[in-house]
Amino acid sequence: MSLDHAATKPHDRLAEALSAEMAEVNALIRTRMASEHAPRIPEVTAHLVEAGGKRLRPMLTLAAAKLCGYDGPYHVHLAATVEFIHTATLLHDDVVDESEQRRGRPTANLLWDNQSSVLVGDYLFARSFQLMVETGNLRVLDILSNAAATIAEGEVLQLTAARNLATTEETYLKVVRGKTAALFSAATEAGAVIADRDETVVTALRDYGDALGIAFQIVDDWLDYGGTSATGKNIGDDFRERKLTLPLIKAVAKADDEERAFWRKTIEKGDQAPSDLHHALDLIHRHGTLAETKSDATRWAERAKQALEEVPAHPLRDMLRDLADYVVARMS
Amino acid sequence: MSLDHAATKPHDRLAEALSAEMAEVNALIRTRMASEHAPRIPEVTAHLVEAGGKRLRPMLTLAAAKLCGYDGPYHVHLAATVEFIHTATLLHDDVVDESEQRRGRPTANLLWDNQSSVLVGDYLFARSFQLMVETGNLRVLDILSNAAATIAEGEVLQLTAARNLATTEETYLKVVRGKTAALFSAATEAGAVIADRDETVVTALRDYGDALGIAFQIVDDWLDYGGTSATGKNIGDDFRERKLTLPLIKAVAKADDEERAFWRKTIEKGDQAPSDLHHALDLIHRHGTLAETKSDATRWAERAKQALEEVPAHPLRDMLRDLADYVVARMS
Repeated sequence: MSLDHAATKPHDRLAEALSAEMAEVNALIRTRMASEHAPRIPEVTAHLVEAGGKRLRPMLTLAAAKLCGYDGPYHVHLAATVEFIHTATLLHDDVVDESEQRRGRPTANLLWDNQSSVLVGDYLFARSFQLMVETGNLRVLDILSNAAATIAEGEVLQLTAARNLATTEETYLKVVRGKTAALFSAATEAGAVIADRDETVVTALRDYGDALGIAFQIVDDWLDYGGTSATGKNIGDDFRERKLTLPLIKAVAKADDEERAFWRKTIEKGDQAPSDLHHALDLIHRHGTLAETKSDATRWAERAKQALEEVPAHPLRDMLRDLADYVVARMS
Repeated sequence: MSLDHAATKPHDRLAEALSAEMAEVNALIRTRMASEHAPRIPEVTAHLVEAGGKRLRPMLTLAAAKLCGYDGPYHVHLAATVEFIHTATLLHDDVVDESEQRRGRPTANLLWDNQSSVLVGDYLFARSFQLMVETGNLRVLDILSNAAATIAEGEVLQLTAARNLATTEETYLKVVRGKTAALFSAATEAGAVIADRDETVVTALRDYGDALGIAFQIVDDWLDYGGTSATGKNIGDDFRERKLTLPLIKAVAKADDEERAFWRKTIEKGDQAPSDLHHALDLIHRHGTLAETKSDATRWAERAKQALEEVPAHPLRDMLRDLADYVVARMS
């Protein structure tokens, strides 16, 4: 199939370039989510895995390994590992957030129950560790088990920071590194390590994943106030769930006494009238914190691209660079 | 301190023989449950870890390694790994079962919330993988990641088998192997593997852990109908929670039409009057299924002791043998 590259999204070009490997990853995921004894497991997993997620994280692993010249079989295992860890965290997140929708479909905790989501998530975590053990590469195991700990730590930190107006940008960055960037950076770093590349390239690809993940999450949080229904987000969900994300943290920092009282009422106490979202958006625009959030995201995307300068020239490297631009382009 | 060995429990004698290593395990657990960013994590973990659990699983690992002549440092890591996996599953179990008490104290999900229990459990799973990766022993990683998958699979199977009168003894055994025996057998097997013992001894210690774990769980299920308040269980909890455990499965298999109607009402439909527990106990006694359950448990304890015959003579081997007797002696 011939594609007009200028017109296709970087994500789709990556998917095209990695299509053979992604087919292997998908086959491996399907095999490993099976359970001889407990048919509930593949039911719940399939609901999420086959819901048309973007498979961004496994593609990062495959791309990193391939542009480092890897020609062994284990980048496929690592890509499936990363997707299993991601799926497990989604299952547990939806229980923790009491979510009812994910990717436009009812969540597993709604279709089955919280119990199934907790236990199937645990199963996928365990399966992900089995997959990475099969690579026989201790350094990769170290990277991925550290990432799993950072993810869980970030989630707990997010839980305890929720509804707390004293949350700083520094805490926000720790949460974002945990919930999003840790798996992005482990995905790219593991790809370079399995390919046995020198430390400069390993560090560069880890830094790329870290900065891309942070940009990705900041954009997600921007879209919750600045997006349109076309971007697939419900404007104001984070406000209604009283989450301290970057646009809000910046607005709270600039609030006068009257505004602080408003944030205390709506975020700390959760006392929200229907018109309060409108007022919150007003305050956010008045202080220019959406624009500031946007430039923060853009700066992280620039850092991601900068990191790639240490990586050998390769068509996949160019696609990763375009991906960083694309992530922030969602905001325009 | 001089102890009259005939009068002390095998568990206490093991604890005495392993006291130096257990002190190291406890110190390692305390270090690794810390979290710089999320103080909620050590709070929740300490509540459970320091509640005076028996530390049976880490002692099995230490005993297996030591009686195999291991003199390196990593049996301590493996013992802490096993205790972290156990603690993580307890946190998630209490969410899944909506439990309010554990070891005579309110559960973490009650003291904090389900969210904290899910996420701190995830953190401990991740920490356990970090600890085992530090051993640098791929075979040990294989054993423990397989155990983690078997545990989660057993929990899901238990969830889907709950309240189902068609549950067979075969399904029960799979659930028990998952929820209890998988970690017991991984604990003993990993101890032998880290000591680099030959396959006969590795297999024998794995089989010991498997059989001991099965005996342990059957006894636990026996006590729920046959115990006294002195054994620390509330008689009838499993009946009230409509769990299909061995004494009940055996009674249902022998039920006439009238009795089946009673089980359908109380277990399948959950329609229980206060006098129904008394009637359930009557049926269980009438069919002799408590006695049968007891002899099943005793048979598994015998198998555990038999497995130890392939293990080199050692005072710790004798303590493990006594431990198997002690586990079933709780029923008399």
